Amino acid sequence: MFSNERSVPKVSMLYIALLHYPVINKEGRVVATAIANMDIHDIARTAKTFGVEKFYVINPIEAQRRLAGQIISHWREGYGAAYNPSRKDAFEKVSIKTDLDEVLAEISAMNGCKPQIIVTGANFQGEVLTCVKLKEVLKSNRLPYLLIFGTGSGIAQEVVNQADYRLEPIRGKDGYNHLAVRSAVAVILDRVVEIS
Amino acid sequence: MFSNERSVPKVSMLYIALLHYPVINKEGRVVATAIANMDIHDIARTAKTFGVEKFYVINPIEAQRRLAGQIISHWREGYGAAYNPSRKDAFEKVSIKTDLDEVLAEISAMNGCKPQIIVTGANFQGEVLTCVKLKEVLKSNRLPYLLIFGTGSGIAQEVVNQADYRLEPIRGKDGYNHLAVRSAVAVILDRVVEIS
Repeated sequence: MFSNERSVPKVSMLYIALLHYPVINKEGRVVATAIANMDIHDIARTAKTFGVEKFYVINPIEAQRRLAGQIISHWREGYGAAYNPSRKDAFEKVSIKTDLDEVLAEISAMNGCKPQIIVTGANFQGEVLTCVKLKEVLKSNRLPYLLIFGTGSGIAQEVVNQADYRLEPIRGKDGYNHLAVRSAVAVILDRVVEIS
Repeated sequence: MFSNERSVPKVSMLYIALLHYPVINKEGRVVATAIANMDIHDIARTAKTFGVEKFYVINPIEAQRRLAGQIISHWREGYGAAYNPSRKDAFEKVSIKTDLDEVLAEISAMNGCKPQIIVTGANFQGEVLTCVKLKEVLKSNRLPYLLIFGTGSGIAQEVVNQADYRLEPIRGKDGYNHLAVRSAVAVILDRVVEIS
């Protein structure tokens, strides 16, 4: 083994995305949701903590993306950057995109191959990828993986159908598992990422 | 073994508290922080998911407690209860208290003994209780345990000194572990609670 091979850890490139369209609402209809300020803050910090390559915020509405861009600039280059340097570091991970295809194209361009797509959801049944298995997989190769989290009441079926894997839901006591997406991202990254 | 003994699982009573005073600010001074609406929502949902007995919000400022009480009432008995029943279930877990002593007194009264106090913090060093160990302990007896999370830049030393245990920090990649308290609660409860 050459020494320069040794210096590159054999760990996958893990990307996460927060999807605002297409997702379903409480009635099961496909909608676009609004970007919540707190989602960007919390998930950026979680992504940085668990060494995620990039955190994509996907929203098709231009005004929404502009607003999110202003928030991110404040913490990355504005007053917030000096006020809270650790927040600045977290916000470096954030990238705003119009749709999932744009995210897939960027990850493909950076890695030379399309990412494996893993969708998350609180109600998946049947054949699912366990977190234990995903953790093993992420440690065994250097391929790109994209883990998608839904807003509203979850990721729309058309995106679920497009995915390579559906991740096992976080089980709760007595069948209750209504976690905030911010909390779900933290739990899942803690389960699947090895901190060396 | 009598059949009624079998029906009662041998699992500890786990309580959590979000402390707004005494905590430290960025400069290390002891302050009282404001209650964040999102903390109540997210942590109540996480507490319900992981089967926590009660989620205490501790704040010494009367106006803050009154505001938090109004938010909780909206979701527990007001319009929110019908609009979002799963949120109602989560908010049933929340109780607002003035100080830590009030929380300790209530838990003691309900259980016939004082809870073991476990404090959390991102910077603890030296002798700490691991999450693996805490998970074992929680499964091995039916005693009450109180897990305290700080706001601001963390729990003040006087409360740390009062605790029976300091929980190991959540380690992040390259030493970064600036999680939102909402995310930290989710990660830690996922690590220490066994969902049967």
